[in-house]
Amino acid sequence: MEILKVSSKSVPSAVAGAIASFVKEDGMVEIQAIGAGAVNQAVKAAAVAKGFLQSSKIDMVCCPAFTNIVIDGIEKTAISIICEKR
Amino acid sequence: MEILKVSSKSVPSAVAGAIASFVKEDGMVEIQAIGAGAVNQAVKAAAVAKGFLQSSKIDMVCCPAFTNIVIDGIEKTAISIICEKR
Repeated sequence: MEILKVSSKSVPSAVAGAIASFVKEDGMVEIQAIGAGAVNQAVKAAAVAKGFLQSSKIDMVCCPAFTNIVIDGIEKTAISIICEKR
Repeated sequence: MEILKVSSKSVPSAVAGAIASFVKEDGMVEIQAIGAGAVNQAVKAAAVAKGFLQSSKIDMVCCPAFTNIVIDGIEKTAISIICEKR
């Protein structure tokens, strides 16, 4: 599964385009975010992507979970949101 | 549908208990959050609730969307996350 890493500076509509594209092509995509600002952008992107896909008659749902990511040798807890076709 | 309002000071495990309870009883619940800190707590709560429900063999999915809420006469854009049984 493709993984999209979202930061607090990510532009929701741009991330949404990528989410919608992967969900259309592959049926699912994972978005990962660390920190409140990044999680907020990720959720906004998912909401926008859901709207994009609705116009293609695709119903997208999200499954949030915690995941551990190693960055520069340090383990951090990230939020993972799997976006998939219902 | 019940609406749970989440703030940046909400405790994710407590909100998760409420989400799990409503999803079990009613099949769905809406969580609303305004601002990055609140959205972050809401997503964490949803992730924890998903874990709680898995132990009861219930698969929960989330549908994020934007919604407008009027607070003290001022319209604000909130994130709404509908949590429901798959």
